[in-house]
Amino acid sequence: MPRVVELAGGVGGAKLADGLQAALGADLTVVVNTGDDLVLHGLAIWPDHDTVAYTLAGLDDVERGWGLANESWTVMDSLAELGDETWFRLGDRDLATHLWRTDRLRAGVRPTAVALEFARRMGIPAAILPMTDDEVRTEVRTGDGWLEFQEYFVHRHQAPEVHAVRFVGADRSTASPEVLAAIEAAELIVIAPSNPIVSVGPILAVGGVRDALGDARRRGVPVVAVSGIVGGRALKGPADRMLASLGHEPSALGVARLYADLADGFVLDDLDMGLRPAIDALGLATLTTDTVMTDDASRARFGAEVVAFGGSLQPVRP
Amino acid sequence: MPRVVELAGGVGGAKLADGLQAALGADLTVVVNTGDDLVLHGLAIWPDHDTVAYTLAGLDDVERGWGLANESWTVMDSLAELGDETWFRLGDRDLATHLWRTDRLRAGVRPTAVALEFARRMGIPAAILPMTDDEVRTEVRTGDGWLEFQEYFVHRHQAPEVHAVRFVGADRSTASPEVLAAIEAAELIVIAPSNPIVSVGPILAVGGVRDALGDARRRGVPVVAVSGIVGGRALKGPADRMLASLGHEPSALGVARLYADLADGFVLDDLDMGLRPAIDALGLATLTTDTVMTDDASRARFGAEVVAFGGSLQPVRP
Repeated sequence: MPRVVELAGGVGGAKLADGLQAALGADLTVVVNTGDDLVLHGLAIWPDHDTVAYTLAGLDDVERGWGLANESWTVMDSLAELGDETWFRLGDRDLATHLWRTDRLRAGVRPTAVALEFARRMGIPAAILPMTDDEVRTEVRTGDGWLEFQEYFVHRHQAPEVHAVRFVGADRSTASPEVLAAIEAAELIVIAPSNPIVSVGPILAVGGVRDALGDARRRGVPVVAVSGIVGGRALKGPADRMLASLGHEPSALGVARLYADLADGFVLDDLDMGLRPAIDALGLATLTTDTVMTDDASRARFGAEVVAFGGSLQPVRP
Repeated sequence: MPRVVELAGGVGGAKLADGLQAALGADLTVVVNTGDDLVLHGLAIWPDHDTVAYTLAGLDDVERGWGLANESWTVMDSLAELGDETWFRLGDRDLATHLWRTDRLRAGVRPTAVALEFARRMGIPAAILPMTDDEVRTEVRTGDGWLEFQEYFVHRHQAPEVHAVRFVGADRSTASPEVLAAIEAAELIVIAPSNPIVSVGPILAVGGVRDALGDARRRGVPVVAVSGIVGGRALKGPADRMLASLGHEPSALGVARLYADLADGFVLDDLDMGLRPAIDALGLATLTTDTVMTDDASRARFGAEVVAFGGSLQPVRP
């Protein structure tokens, strides 16, 4: 199987990663957004990384859509009794991850090395790489000013309209050697059906990532982007409203426009068949299929389709 | 009721504190040993403080003898699955305490202020004060060299023989203003039936504590020490073996000798009646009674007896 790199955010990225891993096993490397990471109760919380890791370990809670299956909430309930803010719910089993990770980071281990060790301990075949070992923090500007991402996303339930987005620290960040090596060794690069603004955006803002993607394409390695917007609605999260409030079209076409300069192929849902000519006109090859992954079988089917589509492409060699 | 200050370690100190609190309510201040404190998984763990606090909140696990009742162990079990060392067992509910506290400390709040806030949130009538806001760490020398206290106490199950004890940082430490103010306002000072070497020893080693006790006695405030050794055996923990290996008599008399220079009264168990003349000869007034606190009623009875005994004493005014 080809060596594939996926650039991913949380839930959508994790589902596709699961489908890709079913086809590729250890030939898959997932580069995850770290712009949503935060410190809570002194613990290093990596939401996108953990969503991907738990999903690839087969431990994700499918019904809740985040966190671990068979989770309990004793620590949070006790913290609430102590009067602490608990809007960011950390399950008991999940907390073990954060405690373990924070300990490693405090011991001076690089985030990338911590992530690789975690995946090994969880028995995950794929590699999961933080986009950078540097600190990058996504912030959104709302009517209340700049908010940290999780303050907006979790605490305020994505209710405020987003007028601007910034990735604090991105201009000083560089992709880790592991991320650059994975892109260099890749035979296909996939941009996940994650929020293009706040999930994929931070990865592309890290120093060296866009250049590495360009170099890959010049070597003949195609880049395929997948739309997370179906029928004008985000499959999960606020991407549709965020696209609109930032002046983009909240549709697969709007997403395709954002990736037109760095992708060769674009995957959209059957429901959006009508947008295909406009996306073709952007110079993107298109695959139209059922993009909604509702179970393991549909994840695996879709993952295989994306890989086959990528294999059929000849990059434009920009 | 008189204002009472108790100098306390863990379980024995907590039981007596519970009995004293039953009689005194908010007139009780417990000064707890912090020499056993440690950082684990990045969290500030205060074993003696928490044993006293959970006991005074009525939340202690009576059967296990430490930690909280109705405890669960999900986080620890998950950490063990990740391959972490889990010899120091932290329950889920207990973890909330450490997370809450570590957050406060990282925000720059003094340990004493954190402890006072914790007691308030737990609805504890008494004040619980760390002996100092400075870092003091108890270490014991064994055949394997110097060990951190919890490494000896929990990890190695108190099996190694202790040849020496030191309180690292004690010489640079000073008692907190709250501890000094509590001793200054006290009408009776009680030394708990805790390990005299490694529980009470660190408190007495903190800069200013011995002087404050001497000043109190000169003002006519009696100091009463309670033996935690009954019939030559420690009620809990390794105090008997530790006394012997450090060259002291492992008996109530041996404990009385350690406190002879700073106490006016000494409480020993009926079982040790025969040691009373030798303890009298040290210049200590004695109370002989049933010192084994097996339930709430016996804690309250014993607490009241200690307070009454203290009230009967006239300090020697050294």
